[in-house]
Amino acid sequence: MTAVQQEGDDQSVSLHLLKQKMADFAKERNWDQFHSPRNLLLAMVGEVGELSEIFQWKGEVPKGLPDWKEDEKVHLGEELSDVLLYLVRLSDICGIDLGKAALRKVELNAIKYRASKNYGTNDDSTAEMCG
Amino acid sequence: MTAVQQEGDDQSVSLHLLKQKMADFAKERNWDQFHSPRNLLLAMVGEVGELSEIFQWKGEVPKGLPDWKEDEKVHLGEELSDVLLYLVRLSDICGIDLGKAALRKVELNAIKYRASKNYGTNDDSTAEMCG
Amino acid sequence: MTAVQQEGDDQSVSLHLLKQKMADFAKERNWDQFHSPRNLLLAMVGEVGELSEIFQWKGEVPKGLPDWKEDEKVHLGEELSDVLLYLVRLSDICGIDLGKAALRKVELNAIKYRASKNYGTNDDSTAEMCG
Amino acid sequence: MTAVQQEGDDQSVSLHLLKQKMADFAKERNWDQFHSPRNLLLAMVGEVGELSEIFQWKGEVPKGLPDWKEDEKVHLGEELSDVLLYLVRLSDICGIDLGKAALRKVELNAIKYRASKNYGTNDDSTAEMCG
Repeated sequence: MTAVQQEGDDQSVSLHLLKQKMADFAKERNWDQFHSPRNLLLAMVGEVGELSEIFQWKGEVPKGLPDWKEDEKVHLGEELSDVLLYLVRLSDICGIDLGKAALRKVELNAIKYRASKNYGTNDDSTAEMCG
Repeated sequence: MTAVQQEGDDQSVSLHLLKQKMADFAKERNWDQFHSPRNLLLAMVGEVGELSEIFQWKGEVPKGLPDWKEDEKVHLGEELSDVLLYLVRLSDICGIDLGKAALRKVELNAIKYRASKNYGTNDDSTAEMCG
Repeated sequence: MTAVQQEGDDQSVSLHLLKQKMADFAKERNWDQFHSPRNLLLAMVGEVGELSEIFQWKGEVPKGLPDWKEDEKVHLGEELSDVLLYLVRLSDICGIDLGKAALRKVELNAIKYRASKNYGTNDDSTAEMCG
Repeated sequence: MTAVQQEGDDQSVSLHLLKQKMADFAKERNWDQFHSPRNLLLAMVGEVGELSEIFQWKGEVPKGLPDWKEDEKVHLGEELSDVLLYLVRLSDICGIDLGKAALRKVELNAIKYRASKNYGTNDDSTAEMCG
């Protein structure tokens, strides 16, 4: 699969592709000097704040956001992306393979929260996926 | 490329794959009932907090984390993954195609911060990628 | 009013008192060396994460938390306090008079959002106090 | 001590005073309807993001911010205040006496981290005040 095909097919956007794009982006602008781990972490916290602002006065929001206008959804997609892009960049700068780590974490969660248990049926259930 | 190949090759871990794994995980445990947008957002903020705790007393940290022990790096990978997994799940529950949105945001950033400018050479430079 | 009276009367707990307690606490433990602005900021983000975890799976929560158990409320009070204490310490280390700044910000907000307007009656209302 | 005196003397700005100001502010604007616990929590997370943005590209910052311009410090004071004001309001809406809780937490921390120990002298030291 070529890079062009990857970008054309949204199902196959990989963390590796995003990592590469962020690295190229920073290099082309001479921004590597600013991309220390804690700088990127704080930048990500800033984006989490912007994402939270979208939801802050809305009360509970149903799945699929049925009542949101199209431009609100576009804005939401941008803020979700900002968090993702800094997260990918932070991981890269720390030397962490984020895709590999994420697959491993899913497996650890599957061991921690076995599917055979009756989750979601009583008060004790915490519904954590990433404890 | 098959799902098995995707999982075997860490360079190709896609957002789509992670989305699917998170959806299956929640369904198998009857956790869809808990996965409202704001619940997932707050869960993600919780994980951002855990990620920040790793860096909180360290002062400035060099790229590549040369002085970190292996178990510290493994822990870091887990916390980075927790943020990612909730972000992927939140996007899915909101009906946002995160991979598509992220590629679009990279393009918007490239327009906003043109590579031809002399970034990183004076006080006005902000080095934002995701403004 | 003496310090003892201040502590005895919960209505009068001042930011100045908390600042002094945090400064003494750090000095007695030789922790000033760790209390740089960004260390404290990340520590505060960590506590915001712990606060969010309390609310993450609860869906919408009514004012006054009528259905919460006493120990849940005690826990909540501790996490709210942790955020406050790091915020007070961060402000002190940055040389910012937090009480003075907060009173000023309330006044700025009163100018920005005049009470005579009909807030809260239409879609345009954002209910921001701290924009 | 009168309210006027309290406001005139910045050393004595109390959490009670700020709580009252926030309650009056919301009531005058018909904003109580928006001030649910999770709305206020997310609003606070938004302000934590804005606070983080101030520090995000600066690398390590020395105590007292000696190189910051006056307007940067004023801006910092505003963002610190925004976090505080939402924290005070959130506590009030949850029925938590924040001043009382904070004094209690300082005492708990003093028990947890006894001053007689040799903190800050080896790698095991974590310098946590609010664990």
